[in-house]
Amino acid sequence: MTTNTHLPTKQELIDLRREFHEFPEPGWREFWTTARIVEELERLGVDQIHVGADALAPEERLGVPDERELSEWLDRAAARTDRTDVLEQVEGGHTGVVAVVERGDGPTVGLRVDIDALPITESSDGDHKPTAEGFRSENEGYMHACGHDSHITFGLGTLQTVIESEFDGTFKVFFQPSEELLGGGKAMAAGPHIDDVDYLIGTHVGLEYPTGTVIAGLDEVLAFSRFDVTFTGESAHAGFAPNEGRNAVQALVTATNNIFGIPRHRDGATRVNVGEINSDNAANVIADKATATVEVRGESNELMEYMRDSLHRHIDAAAEAHGCEEETSLIGEAIREDSDEELVGLVDEIAGGVDGVSVVHRRRSAGASEDVTYLMRAVKDNGGKATYVGIGSDSPSGHHTPTFDVDEDCLLIGVSVLSDTVLDLLS
Amino acid sequence: MTTNTHLPTKQELIDLRREFHEFPEPGWREFWTTARIVEELERLGVDQIHVGADALAPEERLGVPDERELSEWLDRAAARTDRTDVLEQVEGGHTGVVAVVERGDGPTVGLRVDIDALPITESSDGDHKPTAEGFRSENEGYMHACGHDSHITFGLGTLQTVIESEFDGTFKVFFQPSEELLGGGKAMAAGPHIDDVDYLIGTHVGLEYPTGTVIAGLDEVLAFSRFDVTFTGESAHAGFAPNEGRNAVQALVTATNNIFGIPRHRDGATRVNVGEINSDNAANVIADKATATVEVRGESNELMEYMRDSLHRHIDAAAEAHGCEEETSLIGEAIREDSDEELVGLVDEIAGGVDGVSVVHRRRSAGASEDVTYLMRAVKDNGGKATYVGIGSDSPSGHHTPTFDVDEDCLLIGVSVLSDTVLDLLS
Amino acid sequence: MTTNTHLPTKQELIDLRREFHEFPEPGWREFWTTARIVEELERLGVDQIHVGADALAPEERLGVPDERELSEWLDRAAARTDRTDVLEQVEGGHTGVVAVVERGDGPTVGLRVDIDALPITESSDGDHKPTAEGFRSENEGYMHACGHDSHITFGLGTLQTVIESEFDGTFKVFFQPSEELLGGGKAMAAGPHIDDVDYLIGTHVGLEYPTGTVIAGLDEVLAFSRFDVTFTGESAHAGFAPNEGRNAVQALVTATNNIFGIPRHRDGATRVNVGEINSDNAANVIADKATATVEVRGESNELMEYMRDSLHRHIDAAAEAHGCEEETSLIGEAIREDSDEELVGLVDEIAGGVDGVSVVHRRRSAGASEDVTYLMRAVKDNGGKATYVGIGSDSPSGHHTPTFDVDEDCLLIGVSVLSDTVLDLLS
Amino acid sequence: MTTNTHLPTKQELIDLRREFHEFPEPGWREFWTTARIVEELERLGVDQIHVGADALAPEERLGVPDERELSEWLDRAAARTDRTDVLEQVEGGHTGVVAVVERGDGPTVGLRVDIDALPITESSDGDHKPTAEGFRSENEGYMHACGHDSHITFGLGTLQTVIESEFDGTFKVFFQPSEELLGGGKAMAAGPHIDDVDYLIGTHVGLEYPTGTVIAGLDEVLAFSRFDVTFTGESAHAGFAPNEGRNAVQALVTATNNIFGIPRHRDGATRVNVGEINSDNAANVIADKATATVEVRGESNELMEYMRDSLHRHIDAAAEAHGCEEETSLIGEAIREDSDEELVGLVDEIAGGVDGVSVVHRRRSAGASEDVTYLMRAVKDNGGKATYVGIGSDSPSGHHTPTFDVDEDCLLIGVSVLSDTVLDLLS
Repeated sequence: MTTNTHLPTKQELIDLRREFHEFPEPGWREFWTTARIVEELERLGVDQIHVGADALAPEERLGVPDERELSEWLDRAAARTDRTDVLEQVEGGHTGVVAVVERGDGPTVGLRVDIDALPITESSDGDHKPTAEGFRSENEGYMHACGHDSHITFGLGTLQTVIESEFDGTFKVFFQPSEELLGGGKAMAAGPHIDDVDYLIGTHVGLEYPTGTVIAGLDEVLAFSRFDVTFTGESAHAGFAPNEGRNAVQALVTATNNIFGIPRHRDGATRVNVGEINSDNAANVIADKATATVEVRGESNELMEYMRDSLHRHIDAAAEAHGCEEETSLIGEAIREDSDEELVGLVDEIAGGVDGVSVVHRRRSAGASEDVTYLMRAVKDNGGKATYVGIGSDSPSGHHTPTFDVDEDCLLIGVSVLSDTVLDLLS
Repeated sequence: MTTNTHLPTKQELIDLRREFHEFPEPGWREFWTTARIVEELERLGVDQIHVGADALAPEERLGVPDERELSEWLDRAAARTDRTDVLEQVEGGHTGVVAVVERGDGPTVGLRVDIDALPITESSDGDHKPTAEGFRSENEGYMHACGHDSHITFGLGTLQTVIESEFDGTFKVFFQPSEELLGGGKAMAAGPHIDDVDYLIGTHVGLEYPTGTVIAGLDEVLAFSRFDVTFTGESAHAGFAPNEGRNAVQALVTATNNIFGIPRHRDGATRVNVGEINSDNAANVIADKATATVEVRGESNELMEYMRDSLHRHIDAAAEAHGCEEETSLIGEAIREDSDEELVGLVDEIAGGVDGVSVVHRRRSAGASEDVTYLMRAVKDNGGKATYVGIGSDSPSGHHTPTFDVDEDCLLIGVSVLSDTVLDLLS
Repeated sequence: MTTNTHLPTKQELIDLRREFHEFPEPGWREFWTTARIVEELERLGVDQIHVGADALAPEERLGVPDERELSEWLDRAAARTDRTDVLEQVEGGHTGVVAVVERGDGPTVGLRVDIDALPITESSDGDHKPTAEGFRSENEGYMHACGHDSHITFGLGTLQTVIESEFDGTFKVFFQPSEELLGGGKAMAAGPHIDDVDYLIGTHVGLEYPTGTVIAGLDEVLAFSRFDVTFTGESAHAGFAPNEGRNAVQALVTATNNIFGIPRHRDGATRVNVGEINSDNAANVIADKATATVEVRGESNELMEYMRDSLHRHIDAAAEAHGCEEETSLIGEAIREDSDEELVGLVDEIAGGVDGVSVVHRRRSAGASEDVTYLMRAVKDNGGKATYVGIGSDSPSGHHTPTFDVDEDCLLIGVSVLSDTVLDLLS
Repeated sequence: MTTNTHLPTKQELIDLRREFHEFPEPGWREFWTTARIVEELERLGVDQIHVGADALAPEERLGVPDERELSEWLDRAAARTDRTDVLEQVEGGHTGVVAVVERGDGPTVGLRVDIDALPITESSDGDHKPTAEGFRSENEGYMHACGHDSHITFGLGTLQTVIESEFDGTFKVFFQPSEELLGGGKAMAAGPHIDDVDYLIGTHVGLEYPTGTVIAGLDEVLAFSRFDVTFTGESAHAGFAPNEGRNAVQALVTATNNIFGIPRHRDGATRVNVGEINSDNAANVIADKATATVEVRGESNELMEYMRDSLHRHIDAAAEAHGCEEETSLIGEAIREDSDEELVGLVDEIAGGVDGVSVVHRRRSAGASEDVTYLMRAVKDNGGKATYVGIGSDSPSGHHTPTFDVDEDCLLIGVSVLSDTVLDLLS
């Protein structure tokens, strides 16, 4: 096994980020991405590389796609890498890696980065830098539109920096799959690598903060649950015998109506959406099947639970009203967990001294949902500390849009802030 | 006790009808009406006069109003009659009379007439004959707008005619309360006087057939159920803590939505209405109580049951959806029961020979709901025969309108058709 | 051009029916079917063969699928026939044929048969005769489950019989596409071949009448309209800014609720269904698009219009409620038109004398929707006469089920009844 | 005109408060209350006393009850006061008073207190002090359950104190009617007495702060609108001709469903309620009329407007969907307006020195809706300053409950804080 012999340069980080940008893979389908990370970890001489089922608790994965979907993406990955050994490990949606390096008896520090992409078609406009400079997504219809390509780069760059440095303790990097589906965080927190972590750092790029800004503690992510709901009734000819049906469309409509009408809560913000509905039924038949994907959020875990309980009640009752069966399965979940003051203070102090950093905010509201919170809670439950750090980056447009892009200057800044913090904790 | 010594004249019938017209009383509140009928029965020397709880099965009464309402109408009646003996019997909504005359061992024939009025304000227009001739309703807001004043007259006139004639057997007249609420028929059918009836004749005036027309068998009344529904939840301040409520208005809205959406039935016509809703709640409070009056109908008893079962399911489920309790009580009911061919044939034949009758229809659809059907079924269940006879009458406007009126020529025609039929059966 | 030299035999009819059964094509995609009919018409020496745009009014076609869908089916057809000349004519959904034979100055008689199949997967059970005898559908997921394969056979067999016979006048066979979508009848009635027709015969096999039964006049088809509805709003992130959306799912839900609640009508039976709904939206996004396929029916054209007007009102209002745009396009339509007494009498008389016919019903209710009614009305509007004839056939299961099949004995019976009637009218 | 010759004593304040407590009158019906205040003002020798239409802009009053209701309360008042001169002025809902005292050219200071009561039945429990000590509400079903009896006392006591003191300028006390209906503030702000006010102080007792606590600036009242909504359709018999109706109940149900489903807003808290619904229709008739009282709130005026606009859109669309007319009238309204820093600072400083005050909070969230904000805005629009001051009081239970009561120690504290502040501004 070879080892790396230098700190990562800005250009190396840019090259890495662009390579990952070019081949975005959505949640639980990060097959090539996982294989490519493994190659880099091997190149860096990482002590332990845990892939897929060894990296997380497989039975806790949420929102894993069906076999056909997984198999199509595995084929794409196989066409781009010759690491069939890794592809064998990740088959069936077992993506993700945990990298571990140990030096002495010091504390254990974890860094969590997420690696999946979004079902968004990247802009092919000449003004869009990835298009102009030739690293636009090759997976048409999918895009690293949330900056996880930068996150992978943060993870690998920080790891290289730490390895090249003196330290006392253990450093783990959690390359988490399926954050966009809020499907991977819970599984990784239930896996075998989090329990001994004393300090955990999560990170996110951008979030409408400009290059040079760092947020030491991103807080107030919205607790979140997403469900697939299926109503099953009985079909009947809509002309001959409408009374003989048990109408799944009516059940879905009753449920949706009531779900949007769940009362606001005195204790704070809640959210609800029935964003996807379907009944592929013939028009002249009373529908015997209708599906929806439904999600609820809350400013606190309690608020999310209030919404979730109301949701279940409405689904049950709507099925009963129309004589249908219902099946509701959780496909995504996130909790709220805020940053610890001790680590926020440390990042605040260290970031202020990093080249290129002009502004450090101590705490800011994250505003979205994120499943790094599961890992944060697991660490805190064990008596450790955690924070979720924002690395500013200029961007021509918001996250989750076709022209999202990062200012690549943020890459070295991020690696510096993160590795300086890690090394401080391990000194 | 005196006895009557002649057949009723046309003028006597007109006078009777006008007297009843002038003092209309709604269902279970026919206090004066009952007392006045009793007086006439005494005048006619009827053998047995069964009032109120002796005339029907009190526990089967549906839609009896509350004490305050009953008491107000009892006071009105007390101001118009000195028959306190009868008023004591009818107190608490025990209205209605069964009159029985027996002569020999022949069969038992029953005639059923209904006696209640409607909550309709009678026209005060000079063109409206009751107004012009001084017998407009004295109970403002209530009116004999369905012709039950004529029905009472048919009952008394037929009784007088039969008593004045030779016959062999028993003749019973059922003066049924609360037909408009569909609340009295079931109770009278469950009472002690129907079981030995061999032939039952029900009757209705008008129904858009002109004077001189008789329908030997009115069929196809719509089976019917009416319910009072109450949703009970929990109140909460709509501004401070909307989440702490369990919203009875939302439950009512969900139920109503779904009730109007009960599928049409392949086997025939159904009907549904949520016609009365109420939540007298403060505007800034999540409602803890909401009520509705709901009714369903069907061309057959089975169709009505299909609607009723769907109704109950939707009420249950709506309560569940919004965390409320529901209470549903039956307040009106009617079944469908068609006329027997044997009696239809007899009425057809006899009516053809009555003075003033120009057209006899053998069978026609009644088109509405009626609870004479309970008495018809009871008779048939005991092996007897029943028919429901229409007596045509010109009218300036439809039933249940403020200018409804009968052509008083129909009174003698009706009495003749009915008494000739009864006497034929008792000969 | 060759000519046929004999009446069709039972075996020839069976062979024809099986050939068409094996390659079912749905509405406006009857590419091979049209080509194969043309081949037969040529073999029979038919005088005029009008295909596609020459057979009907193309702009009146309803429910034509999109280009991709049409093109896939054209490719399938091209793999089965070398009649590229016909495929060029039918490209773009221009299916259907009108065949015309003229002999002398007598009247013009039309026979209308429909040729499309259903999106139903045919049973592969060994008990299912088409499977057992090797002529099961080759177009997986599609099936002649309504007997239109027999209808094509009736058309070709009757044509051959008429051509082989002496007659005076003109005989036209309308091979109508897209009856199952109720999309072709109106277009064919608006085409150039119906105006001079003096007598029109439509026909249907089966309908739960056994082999040997003929219905001289099928009446009371339900008038029908089907619409594609699209609500377009504006998307927004369901977590960040739900208020910025204009929610197309909510619009669809409001509309669907109200559409199912359209009041029953005093004048007779109505039907309504929202059978197919879709919003392929991301779960965390307020939906900017939602679609439905909606249909209404009525026992009369007026009842259907009442339902249709209510439907439009509810769609408009639901869009307005949720700040959306709506687009509603008619994709299927049928009217009610009953059979003429003169033709019903003729078929009744003739069918009674046909070999194998044991029962003739004069008139029966069709119970379903059918667009032969447009051709019937067009003929009647021009002073002609029309009837819609049922040819009984035993079947192991109902129409539109995977095990539907006809008793092939019905083929010769049908051809005999139809050709005897046609020849009588042309004698 | 006599003048008062001493500062108010604690006992005098208690007596006043109890007198007002005993005769609570709801919004626009404060007839006796107004007359009694006028008497006190006369006793104090106030320079100008403006009653009713002279105190506010009558056409801006919201939620004025109907004539019958007004007349019943006027009769009650007439039975308790002989000030028929004042009763003539207030007839028709023209309640409220503005008192003005002028001394020299100094600034103008306003104090606003509200005077109406709530439709709540006061506890008759022996533990409830007003019951135990004999000043429980004499207007059964109505109660000063929000402390406005104390507010009137604050107004009169402060006026007496100021009058008894030296000052330079003008002091106005606004005795505002109908705050509970959020119906009087807008009218008083549009009246003739606010425009020259340089400093305005609003005040509220209790709010769950204990006796001895003062809040210098109550902020963040929820902006608010309340509407009476009437849907008018067309009635029809639910059995005979349901299709002939235009169903007002269905319109109300559609609107209510959608109103509860108005999306949450990214910018902060919103509220909505349909708390009162009614259709007094016969159960067997399609309802031609249905009413609701609906209210919306927002953490900011913009949020309230977002809710209000959505509300109107849903009401319009629901009427359109069901072929009904709608009429929506505003019956209550409040805006959000926060306290000015300058006045908050002054009250904070002064209150700290008042006997009995142990805690002063600079700013706190009010949490409810209040229409003092209209007067605050009017003053600010003219370049003045305003604040809304809380005077703590222990209470056995929350506002708007049957056992609400104030600790009468708060009366003198309140008068001291308010009069010291007023005198400071006028010195």
